[in-house]
Amino acid sequence: MERDRDGEPGGEGVRPSRRALLGWGGAGLALGAAAGGSAAALYPHEAPAHTDEAVEFHGAHQAGIATAVPDRLHFAAFDVTTKDRAELVALLRDWTRAAAALTRGDPVGEGATGGLPESPPDDTGEALGLPPARLTLTLGLGPSLFAKDRFGLHDRRPEALVDLPRFPGDNLDRARSGGDLCVQACADDPQVAVHAVRNLSRIAFGRAAIRWSQLGFGKTSSTTPSTQTPRNLFGFKDGTANIDGSDEAALRRHVWVPEADGPDWMVGGSYLVARRIRMHIETWDRTSLREQEDVFGRDKREGAAVGRRHEHESPSLRAMLPTAHVRLAHPDTNDGARMLRRGYSFTDGTDGLGRLDAGLFFLAYQRDVRRAFIPVQRRLARHDALNEYIQHVGSAVFAVPPGVRDHRDWWGRELLT
Amino acid sequence: MERDRDGEPGGEGVRPSRRALLGWGGAGLALGAAAGGSAAALYPHEAPAHTDEAVEFHGAHQAGIATAVPDRLHFAAFDVTTKDRAELVALLRDWTRAAAALTRGDPVGEGATGGLPESPPDDTGEALGLPPARLTLTLGLGPSLFAKDRFGLHDRRPEALVDLPRFPGDNLDRARSGGDLCVQACADDPQVAVHAVRNLSRIAFGRAAIRWSQLGFGKTSSTTPSTQTPRNLFGFKDGTANIDGSDEAALRRHVWVPEADGPDWMVGGSYLVARRIRMHIETWDRTSLREQEDVFGRDKREGAAVGRRHEHESPSLRAMLPTAHVRLAHPDTNDGARMLRRGYSFTDGTDGLGRLDAGLFFLAYQRDVRRAFIPVQRRLARHDALNEYIQHVGSAVFAVPPGVRDHRDWWGRELLT
Repeated sequence: MERDRDGEPGGEGVRPSRRALLGWGGAGLALGAAAGGSAAALYPHEAPAHTDEAVEFHGAHQAGIATAVPDRLHFAAFDVTTKDRAELVALLRDWTRAAAALTRGDPVGEGATGGLPESPPDDTGEALGLPPARLTLTLGLGPSLFAKDRFGLHDRRPEALVDLPRFPGDNLDRARSGGDLCVQACADDPQVAVHAVRNLSRIAFGRAAIRWSQLGFGKTSSTTPSTQTPRNLFGFKDGTANIDGSDEAALRRHVWVPEADGPDWMVGGSYLVARRIRMHIETWDRTSLREQEDVFGRDKREGAAVGRRHEHESPSLRAMLPTAHVRLAHPDTNDGARMLRRGYSFTDGTDGLGRLDAGLFFLAYQRDVRRAFIPVQRRLARHDALNEYIQHVGSAVFAVPPGVRDHRDWWGRELLT
Repeated sequence: MERDRDGEPGGEGVRPSRRALLGWGGAGLALGAAAGGSAAALYPHEAPAHTDEAVEFHGAHQAGIATAVPDRLHFAAFDVTTKDRAELVALLRDWTRAAAALTRGDPVGEGATGGLPESPPDDTGEALGLPPARLTLTLGLGPSLFAKDRFGLHDRRPEALVDLPRFPGDNLDRARSGGDLCVQACADDPQVAVHAVRNLSRIAFGRAAIRWSQLGFGKTSSTTPSTQTPRNLFGFKDGTANIDGSDEAALRRHVWVPEADGPDWMVGGSYLVARRIRMHIETWDRTSLREQEDVFGRDKREGAAVGRRHEHESPSLRAMLPTAHVRLAHPDTNDGARMLRRGYSFTDGTDGLGRLDAGLFFLAYQRDVRRAFIPVQRRLARHDALNEYIQHVGSAVFAVPPGVRDHRDWWGRELLT
């Protein structure tokens, strides 16, 4: 059944949980699987019945990169507030233990009602009774963590973890940029994602504090190409040619850090670029259909490239305007550079001028930002016709270490020991 | 099957759509229904397979009040910018036509790719290919719409549409309060809800503009008591005794405006109070389990009232502290006053102090705010132990006219003709 593969790219295990806690029987599992299959057939964009599944936390790579993209995001960047390396280590160990529980659908520590009545509960409780919802928690380490005179990590900073250059048109808000650490929480249920980040933030008390965070409500890219490509807030499909999370060769070539690149502690990891891209919805909405299609280089209904009839036909870049987004972002224009994108739409209410504060929270994983995001974005920032309708307002880059191997391992162990 | 009733309180029709547009066959429907049944049995809180259903827009009452509460919200309050009554009428007629299409799962006007290529598309397109997701759109009229020298409506303002008094502890942000009009969009998919508000806002261009808006991600009350009571961001079930959307007697007594109350144009309508309630998550999270349970007057795990074992056992109010939230909000403490609540949790990132800007967006429908929200909130604002952990930061009240009867009728017709 196709859904099963979608749920498990990279061969990661999937198992139900939290249900067991509440006494639901195993008999429901087969029903749940059947339910998912039929719903996915009707609306391939949606995969609602996935909510009873858990994504395996342990593995060679962190979950939340090649794994299927569920439809909700809570992303948080943290400042480390302690100056003590031992406390940083303790935080990462505590976070790892909590993340393993949360992604199983379990509460952290002794739960929301365990422990002593005289103490605050270990878990905040708002996810009690909710299924695991395919929650993944992915940790990243920002360049500032490696600064001199902080934690003695200066010499271990990967060469590929560069500070991003300023691109033409950038209008970055410092309060929405950077961060010593990040946690990407993806889930089918926002309450599950928010609960996870909140409880990690709580565990961090006195050691790290949230610097900025972003909720995303609709994924704009998929790692499961058999499902329908989602649409962004301009109403277009974008990211048709995203890396398939089950394409091991493409992952090895474009996403995972190989031994040849190093450093050792990053092998099997990846680099994450996060950009908050404001979309000027009101301006776009007054633009003609023809102009919109020229800007992207696709038709709006099917998502087919200019001159093609179907979305997945490979595009003729020369048939597009030189400023077309698809043409400029295509690997053929960028020496074969590809990224695994996991972006989300966001809407954060309205700004002071009554305009929708909405856009794309771009998240892209890659083996080396110097050969992927940076050259591609240099080209886009200079030439992309879309620039008239968007603005990059937040930016961060993180080294994403390899996966947590087993119950004794923890996030960042190879870096910090 | 229980799910069927949950999807259709008040006997409202449900039918698939948008699927037809994309050529999906009717055969999938039965599968979809089966899927919903099993998923609902596993996780009664969630009803993912509802997403292929449409809620009937036309009827004696507006949908989005007694109908089932899907898990996502986009609420928008508008300022009417035109001074011309005829333009206000035209706006409400245009909105009604669009709302009927959107709730069916159809695009507005000629769609995202219809019309002339030289013109901006009628629909913004980001919901193209998405199912109706039980979208409801509910219109409200604020007190300011009835002001003297605006639209000649001063004499038609309902007596019950009072300006809310200032309550102790209120810390209201004007930029998040009031509004001439409001639209409540509820759906299973936030992209569908956001798409609807965005397109209504676009249709309003030059006649009305968004004053403030609020996204909600997890419902905190249910109108379908057979499903699991959702939890708020304090990790507690609240609203166990909410009005059942299929309990016609309770709706008549507490929610719908009867002829005896008047005015005529409001008969079959209701009054909506919206309050943005910030929850001081960090303070709460440092509070002991015992204190948390005392504050609510319930146990955290089951949601049972003090001294009871199960959530739905009727509480012994005298067993609770006089300051317990459940005791103070209970109808027995308030001369039988009840409201139909449809609140949502929200998380709008972090504030300048690194604290989660999160809480409850309280939405309550009632026959008369003077006999429901106002006296209940006066009591809560003075005595509720919860006040140490919350603050009301936004407020609005709206008259919600009766339903749009048929394709010739429109929102507010009886008021404006």
